[in-house]
Amino acid sequence: PEIIADIEQKFAQRGRTMSPSNRKQALIPEGADILANRTGSAPGIIWQPVPNVTIMTFPGVPAEMQLMWAEIAVPYLKNEGWCTETICSRTLKFWGIAESALAEKVDSFLNLTNPTVASYANHGEVKLRISACAKSESAAKNLIEPIEQQLLQIAGLDCYGADTDTLPSTVGKLLLKACETLSVAESCTGGGLGAMLTGVAGSSRYFLGGIISYDDRVKEGLLGVNPRDLAEFGAVSHQVAKQMAAGVRQGLNTNWGLSITGIAGPCGGTDAKPVGLVYVGLAGDGEVESFEYRFGDARSRDWIRNLSSCTALDRLRRKLLAKA
Amino acid sequence: PEIIADIEQKFAQRGRTMSPSNRKQALIPEGADILANRTGSAPGIIWQPVPNVTIMTFPGVPAEMQLMWAEIAVPYLKNEGWCTETICSRTLKFWGIAESALAEKVDSFLNLTNPTVASYANHGEVKLRISACAKSESAAKNLIEPIEQQLLQIAGLDCYGADTDTLPSTVGKLLLKACETLSVAESCTGGGLGAMLTGVAGSSRYFLGGIISYDDRVKEGLLGVNPRDLAEFGAVSHQVAKQMAAGVRQGLNTNWGLSITGIAGPCGGTDAKPVGLVYVGLAGDGEVESFEYRFGDARSRDWIRNLSSCTALDRLRRKLLAKA
Repeated sequence: PEIIADIEQKFAQRGRTMSPSNRKQALIPEGADILANRTGSAPGIIWQPVPNVTIMTFPGVPAEMQLMWAEIAVPYLKNEGWCTETICSRTLKFWGIAESALAEKVDSFLNLTNPTVASYANHGEVKLRISACAKSESAAKNLIEPIEQQLLQIAGLDCYGADTDTLPSTVGKLLLKACETLSVAESCTGGGLGAMLTGVAGSSRYFLGGIISYDDRVKEGLLGVNPRDLAEFGAVSHQVAKQMAAGVRQGLNTNWGLSITGIAGPCGGTDAKPVGLVYVGLAGDGEVESFEYRFGDARSRDWIRNLSSCTALDRLRRKLLAKA
Repeated sequence: PEIIADIEQKFAQRGRTMSPSNRKQALIPEGADILANRTGSAPGIIWQPVPNVTIMTFPGVPAEMQLMWAEIAVPYLKNEGWCTETICSRTLKFWGIAESALAEKVDSFLNLTNPTVASYANHGEVKLRISACAKSESAAKNLIEPIEQQLLQIAGLDCYGADTDTLPSTVGKLLLKACETLSVAESCTGGGLGAMLTGVAGSSRYFLGGIISYDDRVKEGLLGVNPRDLAEFGAVSHQVAKQMAAGVRQGLNTNWGLSITGIAGPCGGTDAKPVGLVYVGLAGDGEVESFEYRFGDARSRDWIRNLSSCTALDRLRRKLLAKA
C-alpha cells in the first residue's frame, strides 16, 4: 500500500492519472524489502527467498536502474560486507590485430590474479582490461601501472589508446600534434568515415571535409578519377582508391587524403570481387598508397562499412606514427 | 559434475584448456534444473526457491541467451500452460511529432485491451505498437488491421512507416517511385546523413553522393556558397543552408539537394546561435527552402547530429509526399 501511495503521488505531481498497469508495479513477493525509486514509478526489491540467497531487482529503465544501483544497492552491499575494497580498471584498445593473436602474445598475463588481465573483442576492436583490487584507488592504480607498461611493450603499434580514446580521437590528436589537415573520399561507407571523424568535438581543427562519391560520375567529376581506369579496373580497385585519395587531398587542399571504396553487400559481389572486398587509399607526404582488405561476406553491411572506416583511420594512424 | 563434463568437452573440442573461472559456471543452486547451452559454456537454470515462484536464468551472451530462450524456455513455458495463444505486433513509426502530442491524438486507443496500443519514444522517433493476442497468427492480424487503419487516419503524414521501415528506407522508396536522385551537403553531421542514406542496400539507385563541407573553405570552393553571406550571416544560417543545398544539387546534377548546417556542441554556441541550432536546406522542384530547428543544448553532440540527419530526411519525405 505504501508503494501504491508513492506511485499515486508521483502521477499526481506530473498531472497525470495512474493506469491500472501501474498498480502491478506495487506487487512484491512476501518478505521482500523495497528499494525506493527516486525518479520513476516502479520500485526495486531486495529479497532473501532462502538463507544465503539474496535477490535484488531493479526497474528496467536504464537511468532509473543506474541511480538505484549507485544510491541504494552499493551502500547496501558495502554494509553487508560485500565490497570493502576498491576496483580500478584500465582498458587498452587495439586495432589491426585479432583477439586470438593478441591473447597469444600476452598469454602469461591472462592468468594473473591481481591485477587481472582480460581480453574482449567487438566488431574488429580488441581490448585488454587490467583490473586491480586494493584498499584505495591509488594502491589499485599502482598495481595496474607496471602491467600496462609491459603490455604496451609487447603490443607495440597495435595499441591505439586507452579508456575513452577512440580511433578518430587518436588520429585527431596525431594530426593536431603534426599541425596537419585531413579530407576524405568515401564510396561504400557513404559518409560514415567523415561522421566518425566529426564525432570528435573540436575536429574542425584538422578535418576539412570530404566527397561522398557513391556514384561513379561523382568519382570522375569531383575527384578526377580516370574514366578509363574505372572501366578497366572497376570502382573497387587499388587504382581508383588511390585516385580518390589523391583527388580529395588536392581538391580540398589538405595534407592528407583518405579514401574508401568497396563492396559492402549484401548484393553486388562477384567471384572476382566478393562482398567484403574493400580498398583504402592514402595520399600525403609525397606518396599515394592503397591497401586491400577482404572482410568476407559473412558480415553485415553495417559491420563491413564500420570495419572499413576504422581500418582506414588505423592506416592513417600508423602512417602518422611512422612519420613522427 | 555433468555440467563440468559438458564444459570440459566443449573446451576440448575447440582445442583450448579450461580456466578455473569456467568451473564457476558449473555452480548452481540446490534443487535447480539445468538449461543446456548448445553454443557456449555457461548453462542456464530453472529454479523454484519457494512454491509459485519460478526463476529462470540465462547466460549473458546475447546470442546464447536468445537460442536458449527460443529452444528451451519457450517450450517449457508453453508446457506449463503459460502461453497458449499467439501474440502479433505491428509497430507504426513517426517523425516530427512529440510522444505526448501523439498520445493525446490517439488517447482513446491507449486503453484498449486486445489489441493493446502502446507508445514509445526514443531520440526523436515515436512508435505506436499494436499488439494482439489470439488463437492464431491470422486471427491476431485481423484484430490489428482495423486499429492500424484508424491510427493512420488520425496520425496522417507524421507516420512514415511501419516495422522494419526507417526514415532513409522510406525516403528511398519515394525517390525510386518518382525516379529521382538525391545528393547531400553536410556540415555539422560530417557525413552522417550520407551514411544513413547509404545504410540502405540498393541506395545507389537514387543516392549519388555528397559534399562534406565541414570547413567554410569547402562550402565556398565546392558548393559555391557566397563568402560575403558566410561572413554576414555565418555558416549556421538560412542563407548558407539554402546555398549548400542548391550547390550540391547543381554540382552533382541530382533532382534534389539536401543540406545540414548547425552547431552540434558541446562548444561553439553563442547567445544568438546556441548549441542545437540547426538549419536544413532543400533544393529541387524549382525552389530552394530552408528550415530552422532548435534542438537545445541539453542533448549530446551525437544526439543533435542524429536528430539533424533524421529531420532533414523527414523534410524531404514530406516534400516528396506533397509532390506525389
